[in-house]
Amino acid sequence: MSSDPSSATLADLGESGLVAKILARISESQVQSSSVEIAAGDDAAVINTSGSSFVLSVDMYVEGKHFRTDWSTAIEIGRRCAAASIADVCAMGAIPVGVLLAIGLPTTTASPWVEDFMAGFMQETSDASSILLGGDVSGSESIVISVTALGTVVTGAAITRSGARAGDIVGICGRSGMAAGGLRVLQRGLRSPRALVDAFRVPEIDYSAGVRAAEGGATSMIDVSDGLVADLENIARESGVGIEIDTEKIVVPAELVSTAAAFGADPMAWILAGGDDHAFVATFPPTKPLPAGFAAIGTVVIDRVGEVHIDGVRYEDAYGATPGFQHFSS
Amino acid sequence: MSSDPSSATLADLGESGLVAKILARISESQVQSSSVEIAAGDDAAVINTSGSSFVLSVDMYVEGKHFRTDWSTAIEIGRRCAAASIADVCAMGAIPVGVLLAIGLPTTTASPWVEDFMAGFMQETSDASSILLGGDVSGSESIVISVTALGTVVTGAAITRSGARAGDIVGICGRSGMAAGGLRVLQRGLRSPRALVDAFRVPEIDYSAGVRAAEGGATSMIDVSDGLVADLENIARESGVGIEIDTEKIVVPAELVSTAAAFGADPMAWILAGGDDHAFVATFPPTKPLPAGFAAIGTVVIDRVGEVHIDGVRYEDAYGATPGFQHFSS
Repeated sequence: MSSDPSSATLADLGESGLVAKILARISESQVQSSSVEIAAGDDAAVINTSGSSFVLSVDMYVEGKHFRTDWSTAIEIGRRCAAASIADVCAMGAIPVGVLLAIGLPTTTASPWVEDFMAGFMQETSDASSILLGGDVSGSESIVISVTALGTVVTGAAITRSGARAGDIVGICGRSGMAAGGLRVLQRGLRSPRALVDAFRVPEIDYSAGVRAAEGGATSMIDVSDGLVADLENIARESGVGIEIDTEKIVVPAELVSTAAAFGADPMAWILAGGDDHAFVATFPPTKPLPAGFAAIGTVVIDRVGEVHIDGVRYEDAYGATPGFQHFSS
Repeated sequence: MSSDPSSATLADLGESGLVAKILARISESQVQSSSVEIAAGDDAAVINTSGSSFVLSVDMYVEGKHFRTDWSTAIEIGRRCAAASIADVCAMGAIPVGVLLAIGLPTTTASPWVEDFMAGFMQETSDASSILLGGDVSGSESIVISVTALGTVVTGAAITRSGARAGDIVGICGRSGMAAGGLRVLQRGLRSPRALVDAFRVPEIDYSAGVRAAEGGATSMIDVSDGLVADLENIARESGVGIEIDTEKIVVPAELVSTAAAFGADPMAWILAGGDDHAFVATFPPTKPLPAGFAAIGTVVIDRVGEVHIDGVRYEDAYGATPGFQHFSS
C-alpha cells in the first residue's frame, strides 16, 4: 500500500471505493436534462419519453473475473452475459426491449467460439423478448464483453432502490446461493452437483417477475448480483430503513445442503452472500398478498438504518465475513 | 492459417469478416418489435417512442488498439472515448442525450489516472450536452472502455446510410486525415506538429452538425471513423449507388502537407484513408445549398454501385492499398 493517497491504485481502493469516487465527481458535473427521470446510481437509468419511459443499464464481463472459458461453454457465457444485463432493467419494473453488445477478443480466439457465444447471447436475448440493437468488435488481450440493456416502463412507475418503507414485506423471486455453490464446486476442480454448476454457468431468470412486482405494488426492488445481503443493504441505505431477514422462511435446496456439508461450509452463508443468481428482491406493502413467484423472507424496519440483520444480528457477526464480491480484492 | 475453416481465428477472419458473420446470424434470430425502427447495422439503432425516437450506439476502446497511455493523457483518452461514441448518434441526425460507460481496469491502474479519465469523459459528454446515465467498473488485464451513446430524433427523421440517390452532392463537415497524420507522428516517436498529434488525441467534433444535415435534407450520413473512403463505401453499398470524390475540392491543411512530405507520404492518402477524425459525411439533394459547415467534395452516381472512385479511379488503384483500419490485421 502506498502512503500517498493520490497514487492509490485500484487494488487499494477496491471497486466500491472507486465507484463512490466516480459518482461523487459525476453528480457535480451533470448538466440538467428534463427527459431524464433517474440517472446513474440505481440498477438502470430512466428516460421519460412522453407517457412511457426508457430504462438503460450497462454491465461489463471480463474473462478470468466473471467467467472462465474452461468452466463454461461459449454458449453458456453468451447466455449469462445477456441474462445478467437484462435482469437489471427488469429490476426497475421494466419490460425488456433490446440490448447492445461490445466485445473485445484476442486474435487467437477461434471463430466457432465467437459463433457459439453469439448463438447463446441471441438465444437468451430472444428468451427475454429482446433484440440486438447494436454492437462493436475489437481486439483485446482477454475476452471482454459489455452489454447495454434497454427496457420500457410506464412513466413514473419505475421501481428504484429508495422506496422501501417500515412495515413492508421483503419478497424474493428466484434462487439464491446456487451460483455461489456452483462457483465453489468449479473452484475445487469438480463438475457436480450439476444443478449448482449449471446455476453458475447460466442464471435462470424470470424476466416477467419485475413487471409482476411493479403491478403488485413493489416499493423498492433490486436484482441480486453482488449477494442477497449486500444488495438488500443498497435498498436499506437508499431507502433510509433497516431490513430484517428471517432465515426460517428461506428454503435451502438439497444440493446446497449436501455440497456445503461436503465442503464444511454453511449453505445459508452461500444463500445470503453469494451473487450471480439474479433473483429479484423487492419490498411490498403488508396490506396485500405478494405477487406470484415471490416468497416472503423478511420485513422492513424503522431502525438500524442502512443495515440488514439476519435473525436479529448482522451478517458479519453471524458468519464472520463481509457479504458480497470485491472484484479488485485479489 | 488453418486449413479447417471452422477453426479460423479472428486473425484469419478480420474484424469485418467477423462482423459480417455475426450480422448474418443475428438477422435470422431477431424477434420482431414494433417500437424498433432500425436495429443493428447502421451507426446506431433507432427506437420509436410515440413522436420522438431514441438512437443508441455502442463502441469499445481497448488500450494498445485504440489508444496508448504513453501517447495520450487520461483526460484526452476520456474525451476521445466520449466524443467518438456520441458522434455515432449525431451521424443519425439525432440530438445527443446521454451516455453509459463500462470500464475494465488493471488493478495496477493509479487512482489519479481514473479520476483524470472521468474528468475528460465528463467534460466531453457535457460539451455534447449529454449526461452520464449509468456505468460499470471491473478488473481487466488492460484498460477497456465501452461507451453506449443515446440521442433523440423526430420519429422517421433519422438519417441512415441507405438513402443516397444518384445526383446527390457529397458534403463533409469536419477534418479528415489529421488524426491519421498524428498517429504517424506518434508512431515515429515524435510529438509534433502539435495540431496533428492533438487531432489524434481528441477529435474535434461539431455535435450539432448532424442535426443541421438532417434539417438540410441529408439523404444519408455517416461519421468517419474507419476512413473517408471506407465509410463512404458503406453508404454506396447500402444505398445501391456509386460515389465520385473530386480531390480538387478537398483543402489539404498545411500541417498535413509538410508532415507527409517529411515522411515521404501523400497527404491525400491520409485524408482519404485515415480514420478517427469523426467528420460527418452526408449526401444532399443538389437542389439547395449545403448546410452551414458542410463542404462539397463529390457526387453520387447511378453506376459503379457500392464503389467509391477518387478522380475517376478506385482508391486501391490510385494509392495501392486498401483504405480503412483492420483491428485484427496485426
